[in-house]
Amino acid sequence: MEHAETPLAVAVDLGGTRFRVGLVGRQGDLIAHTVYPTDAAAGPDVILARIADAILHAIASAPAGARPVGVGIVAPGPVDPWRGVIYQAPNLPGWEDLPLADRLAALCHLPVRAGNDANLAALGEHRFGAGRGVSHMIYFTVSTGVGGGIIVDDHLLLGARGVAGEPGHMTIELHGRRCNCGNYGCLETLASGTAIAHEAAEALAAGRPSVLGGPGATPTAAEVNAAAEAGDPLAVELMETAARAMGVGVVNLLHLFDPRMVVIGGGVSRSGERWWRALRAEVERRAMPIYLQGLQIVPAALRDDAGLYGAAAMVL
Amino acid sequence: MEHAETPLAVAVDLGGTRFRVGLVGRQGDLIAHTVYPTDAAAGPDVILARIADAILHAIASAPAGARPVGVGIVAPGPVDPWRGVIYQAPNLPGWEDLPLADRLAALCHLPVRAGNDANLAALGEHRFGAGRGVSHMIYFTVSTGVGGGIIVDDHLLLGARGVAGEPGHMTIELHGRRCNCGNYGCLETLASGTAIAHEAAEALAAGRPSVLGGPGATPTAAEVNAAAEAGDPLAVELMETAARAMGVGVVNLLHLFDPRMVVIGGGVSRSGERWWRALRAEVERRAMPIYLQGLQIVPAALRDDAGLYGAAAMVL
Repeated sequence: MEHAETPLAVAVDLGGTRFRVGLVGRQGDLIAHTVYPTDAAAGPDVILARIADAILHAIASAPAGARPVGVGIVAPGPVDPWRGVIYQAPNLPGWEDLPLADRLAALCHLPVRAGNDANLAALGEHRFGAGRGVSHMIYFTVSTGVGGGIIVDDHLLLGARGVAGEPGHMTIELHGRRCNCGNYGCLETLASGTAIAHEAAEALAAGRPSVLGGPGATPTAAEVNAAAEAGDPLAVELMETAARAMGVGVVNLLHLFDPRMVVIGGGVSRSGERWWRALRAEVERRAMPIYLQGLQIVPAALRDDAGLYGAAAMVL
Repeated sequence: MEHAETPLAVAVDLGGTRFRVGLVGRQGDLIAHTVYPTDAAAGPDVILARIADAILHAIASAPAGARPVGVGIVAPGPVDPWRGVIYQAPNLPGWEDLPLADRLAALCHLPVRAGNDANLAALGEHRFGAGRGVSHMIYFTVSTGVGGGIIVDDHLLLGARGVAGEPGHMTIELHGRRCNCGNYGCLETLASGTAIAHEAAEALAAGRPSVLGGPGATPTAAEVNAAAEAGDPLAVELMETAARAMGVGVVNLLHLFDPRMVVIGGGVSRSGERWWRALRAEVERRAMPIYLQGLQIVPAALRDDAGLYGAAAMVL
């Protein structure tokens, strides 16, 4: 009688400057985890070969008795989650309509599945992070932009074309600023780190006094947060305004999806208690009471590894 | 050998002033359909007994060979769709935490399921109306308020507490007017018939010239629409502004749910081509292009019977 083998997923997070390869077990144990440079200029053929090498290397380093069951990859742009085709990758020239999953499967002889970053982070938090066991869960990531993913009845919401779950591009200000996506007044234009930096620069240009500088200064969102922590009134106002906008986004999704939990990750979510307090207060001010019954609004548990865990969850 | 029996659903639409009982076959054939007064003041016991009588009468009048398989009921307020309990019914005094499904099942000896009106209208349009065969579909009803229901992977989205699908109470104007629900700047405050009437009264009070009347006049949404059809500039502006707000609501749901079809019903949706044109133009102006691929935005097919059909769909 043989020993039972332990199934492992190979998880890959492909970015424009580096890619990461890890091994994840069914209990959410990230066993190995290596970072490689991507060298975007080398083009898809070279990069795919390097990723395949890294996958084979990770498998070779797996503990005895482990059996790799598949590869999950976080794609650096919008992706067809059923066929594993990248539609485009803003940071990787030449990656257009590229059959990522099929190409990698041919190189490393394992089943490969691909998904987009925020959606997979949602899946990771649901399977291995803050949202374990929560059938109806919303995940937001608030950093440069605002992304997200939605768990409905224990499944990641994909939609008809595989591109569901873009809460950052929901209009919450009818006549608001134009967003990078082409829409106007998106949540992202009011709640993201980019929005905080934008509003800070505008307020300073208008002559508002602040430790952040004078007219012409362009502090980052992290600098605005640090100034808020130190009690600078303008910085406090900017952080709280952005947090309240996030609260509006949360309430919209409560009224649409009726989740039990909202998980929030990304750099801006690590701003500190003031940001969370303002967000929660706005949710309580606006949401219909039934949606608040037993609702939890919590920080993400997996930080920058949520996507890797979600990639693993696709094949485990 | 016996003849095969034809399964039929008994569908009930319970409102504050009248209730309707119909028989619906698997092909969406509404066989019989009778309207009764509700007599809200009589209280739950009397009303439930009358509904049960009407159900038995409908069954007795069913064609030979038909077999009633269950009762689906459109509840006049928020409902627990799994237990069939009405949380409250704004137009029916004394109906609080009432086990509607169990009470009716005991009276008419058939399985009974209950759901809320806009959600069941979505289910009706999906099963028997404009959205047949469309796995990812959004339904809006635009009348006094704005309601809706969402079909994800061929299933009605219910959420953790059974109250998912309130797109009318999604904020699209950050600092907008207070809504009846307690939130601010809800889609309903900008796109509903009530919103059209409100904006008309405000514009007339401010002295805007119009065939609708002078300061103090309070035209209905239908009157505003009729004046728009006749070319009154203020009325045209009001109808188009409300239609564009609906377009913003549609785009938000495209970016969240990635549906293949958006079905729109309710009185305001029957305003005429100008309203639909303004709505579609706003969707095209704001939506990310991938969400428009193969997207259909269409009028509801079942008009006021959508809820009855959806009630039937729950048990067929």
